[in-house]
Amino acid sequence: MRAREAKAETAHDRAPRLHVDEALGEGRDVALDGPQAHYLRNVLRLREGDAVRLFNGRDGEWRAALSQLGRKGGAACCAQHLRDQQALPDIHCLFAPLKHARLDYMVQKATEMGVAVLQPVTSDYTNAGRLNVARMRANAIEAAEQCNLMGVPEIRALDRLETVLAAWPGDRRLVYCDEAAAIASPLEALARLEPGPLAVLIGPEGGFSPREREFLRAQPYVCPVSLGPRIMRADTAAVAALALVQAVLGDWR
Amino acid sequence: MRAREAKAETAHDRAPRLHVDEALGEGRDVALDGPQAHYLRNVLRLREGDAVRLFNGRDGEWRAALSQLGRKGGAACCAQHLRDQQALPDIHCLFAPLKHARLDYMVQKATEMGVAVLQPVTSDYTNAGRLNVARMRANAIEAAEQCNLMGVPEIRALDRLETVLAAWPGDRRLVYCDEAAAIASPLEALARLEPGPLAVLIGPEGGFSPREREFLRAQPYVCPVSLGPRIMRADTAAVAALALVQAVLGDWR
Repeated sequence: MRAREAKAETAHDRAPRLHVDEALGEGRDVALDGPQAHYLRNVLRLREGDAVRLFNGRDGEWRAALSQLGRKGGAACCAQHLRDQQALPDIHCLFAPLKHARLDYMVQKATEMGVAVLQPVTSDYTNAGRLNVARMRANAIEAAEQCNLMGVPEIRALDRLETVLAAWPGDRRLVYCDEAAAIASPLEALARLEPGPLAVLIGPEGGFSPREREFLRAQPYVCPVSLGPRIMRADTAAVAALALVQAVLGDWR
Repeated sequence: MRAREAKAETAHDRAPRLHVDEALGEGRDVALDGPQAHYLRNVLRLREGDAVRLFNGRDGEWRAALSQLGRKGGAACCAQHLRDQQALPDIHCLFAPLKHARLDYMVQKATEMGVAVLQPVTSDYTNAGRLNVARMRANAIEAAEQCNLMGVPEIRALDRLETVLAAWPGDRRLVYCDEAAAIASPLEALARLEPGPLAVLIGPEGGFSPREREFLRAQPYVCPVSLGPRIMRADTAAVAALALVQAVLGDWR
């Protein structure tokens, strides 16, 4: 109930929210980087003395007053503790790399849905390529700032699905979106899982190879779920699967 | 089970899917418009004789052979009936207008999630403005083509929420995403509904006014659900709410 009240309260607070790395605490002066200062000064037209909200994923959320706002950076002084730190649910999101705007969306959406870790994975039907981790992190930070999150999910480096699964901890359930899942109802399949660490695996556009599907279905930690009779794009499937996981096993209860 | 088999089969069929307005049937020659012909000819580099798949929302899905492909249009001849027509679940999506790319995404996502009707609504905290219905329809068609849908949702003209609710049919349940819903678990709230016509209402960025919230909560057809402790952007909230509705009451069972 507390989190819901905090959401209702803070949703109407218009002071811009910024993610920072430094420690937050009563009277602490916190440095803002160049892009943050530029955004506050030139886009939002804020001035010294104006209010912002700061969070760093560890020390809760603070109201702070801009104490300096220059061309190369700025600073804000923590004045009021607004919210205690809340942990994100222990849900990882594994997904195949996507191109450009779709990757941005995938990262933003998974962040909004409250995942703790984003792990891009290549598979048999994925073209390897490179991923811009800095850009992914920027997208996650922006979503966390806008969507009232208290922390930013960890973005892991691109890895092969096979490698990630070879080191998989047996107690983390992997919800695998499988159009041929044996149980047609995704809620029924999820309801059979014990609460605990979770992950959701979203396949690439071309799906998984027969070899991969066979491997996944044979793992005791894998829970195949079907997401209905239509095909969804990867970022849509991620939000849909995460909504069901949050509702059955996460913090939407 | 039939729909799931069809999805698995058709997901790997690479022939482009096109939505058309004309009737489909054995041996029928169906006109393709200029943009469709341009796309097939210049983007996909198809030639006469190549295969496409056609659907119109009424006559199922057909494999057709391109019989003509010119600058101003083309034609394809229906050869093989691939799938029977399937109705979309009777779910409407009401949402506040969004700007540019976010509106495109909202329409695409709601279409992928299988809604039958998209109804943009203005409310107390929405700037009225205009909506490009033709662009919304183009986005819905594109999503339906790519995501293996058998039909395209109806796009209704922008209207005031108040007006839409004044004419609301009492048997259509309206799932209203309300951060202060009395029942914290959205699954529990949805599980209390009888199967039947449904709609999902996604509020504007600034939320609903106190007056609107009071009105909504007082209506017997309204089912308030909470989507967890974080704030989501409107298109994310739409996918999340629709995933829960499809899983509990729609065709994801």
